[in-house]
Amino acid sequence: MISSELNSSIEEAKSKGLVPFYVNATAGTTVYGAFDPLHKIADICEHHGLWMHVDAAWGGGLLLSNKHRVKLHGIERAHSVTWNPHKMMGVPLQCSTILVKRKGLLQQCNQLCAEYLFQPDKHYEVSYDTGDKSIQCGRHVDIFKLWLMWKAKGSEGFESQVNHCLENAEYLYYKLKRRTDFQLVFKGKPEHSNVCFWYLPKRVQNIPLGPEREKELHMVAPKIKTKMMEEGFTMIGYQPLEDKVNFFRCVFSNPATQREDVDFLLDEIVRLGCEL
Amino acid sequence: MISSELNSSIEEAKSKGLVPFYVNATAGTTVYGAFDPLHKIADICEHHGLWMHVDAAWGGGLLLSNKHRVKLHGIERAHSVTWNPHKMMGVPLQCSTILVKRKGLLQQCNQLCAEYLFQPDKHYEVSYDTGDKSIQCGRHVDIFKLWLMWKAKGSEGFESQVNHCLENAEYLYYKLKRRTDFQLVFKGKPEHSNVCFWYLPKRVQNIPLGPEREKELHMVAPKIKTKMMEEGFTMIGYQPLEDKVNFFRCVFSNPATQREDVDFLLDEIVRLGCEL
Repeated sequence: MISSELNSSIEEAKSKGLVPFYVNATAGTTVYGAFDPLHKIADICEHHGLWMHVDAAWGGGLLLSNKHRVKLHGIERAHSVTWNPHKMMGVPLQCSTILVKRKGLLQQCNQLCAEYLFQPDKHYEVSYDTGDKSIQCGRHVDIFKLWLMWKAKGSEGFESQVNHCLENAEYLYYKLKRRTDFQLVFKGKPEHSNVCFWYLPKRVQNIPLGPEREKELHMVAPKIKTKMMEEGFTMIGYQPLEDKVNFFRCVFSNPATQREDVDFLLDEIVRLGCEL
Repeated sequence: MISSELNSSIEEAKSKGLVPFYVNATAGTTVYGAFDPLHKIADICEHHGLWMHVDAAWGGGLLLSNKHRVKLHGIERAHSVTWNPHKMMGVPLQCSTILVKRKGLLQQCNQLCAEYLFQPDKHYEVSYDTGDKSIQCGRHVDIFKLWLMWKAKGSEGFESQVNHCLENAEYLYYKLKRRTDFQLVFKGKPEHSNVCFWYLPKRVQNIPLGPEREKELHMVAPKIKTKMMEEGFTMIGYQPLEDKVNFFRCVFSNPATQREDVDFLLDEIVRLGCEL
């Protein structure tokens, strides 16, 4: 999000008599793993009196890392945050959280006071009955999985896990940077553990830059992924985005992944794709 | 739902210029386990051109029983049905379904065609990518649990399980009917496996009918449940509803429950509550 554009969009909307009421910033986008400038966005929200929400579904895990937490600076100014510990933290699907700054707000919004579900005349403290506070009243207690893992690993354990994933991403990034048969989608170092790149078989490298080359390049990733799925050794995702044709997106969230696995992945891409 | 009242409510709303668009019928209410008259409601919906939804979250399981399916007659005329196999079928939490009659409708309503999530250029049939059809794109594959259980038990296995639960409810119903220290909330046989009743300790029996007795009766169930939780042998829920003070609701969904357990439950209620 370009904060100056956010500001001018809000002012334009207001001048038309519209009433903007909330801004959804992202900490860790799905494809690129990019982080919005949260402090700047918070300033704009404060200035215009808007609710600030941060979608940290993917990037929230970096809060556990002293090294990488800086990317989420300003998140403490948000009115609400979503965070999916089943993404970066490795909690088994599904474990999604919504955190709201103002105490009691979720209860005020969601409570139905259905006496047939939550009896007020109990012998224990009824504030432990969380159903009336949550968006979906009856749910699997998915947060318990995170709690158990946190107890077992500690914040330090989660931190080293997160750091390790980002180290792998950096390792892959520097490897790709040195090669001519691979091309990074962005020159800069990844902010999260997403590394986006194209593989260019000899034939495609030899086509001059232009629409014909783009068209051919677009078909490379799907073909390689098909072969990966057929052989069963590796699998990574790909997608096009805006003006960019199909590119691979390698995302590290499994703390067991090692540098040898990254090396193997590139070897496999070349083995399966060099004749394309 | 009283179908004649539904019809007059729709006509009243229309006469005020309002536009009713859907009717939510219930097959198996939470507290009483009651079934709405689905054929009559379907007639009214057809007449007025309204969407008919059946909330069969709790009652849907009875469709597996040749004996009890009749209670859901007319459900086949609904435009949409919700059904939670984690309730009556014993599937581990959480397993919820929404079934829509018109093919392709969920996809039309929910698809976002996010190319970065669902690539159309795959080597397999992409109709297997269900994310764009579902209300919540990314989910735990909870329906797999039901599928596995169905494979293991068969429709016959589920049927005998459902029938057994309703037999237990009937057994409890006839037991309570013969006793003077218990009182059924409804005289009629339960439609589902919910049995609703009051326990009347001697002291309460001796209070003449009226507000004083109601006030005392209201406090009996919470006190007994507290003792149950402290002792740890039995636990059943209670709630007030409309003009009815706190009553127990015994719901059978565990196929392992036996008649001896029902006997034990009543003995426990008397043991814990007779001095109240």
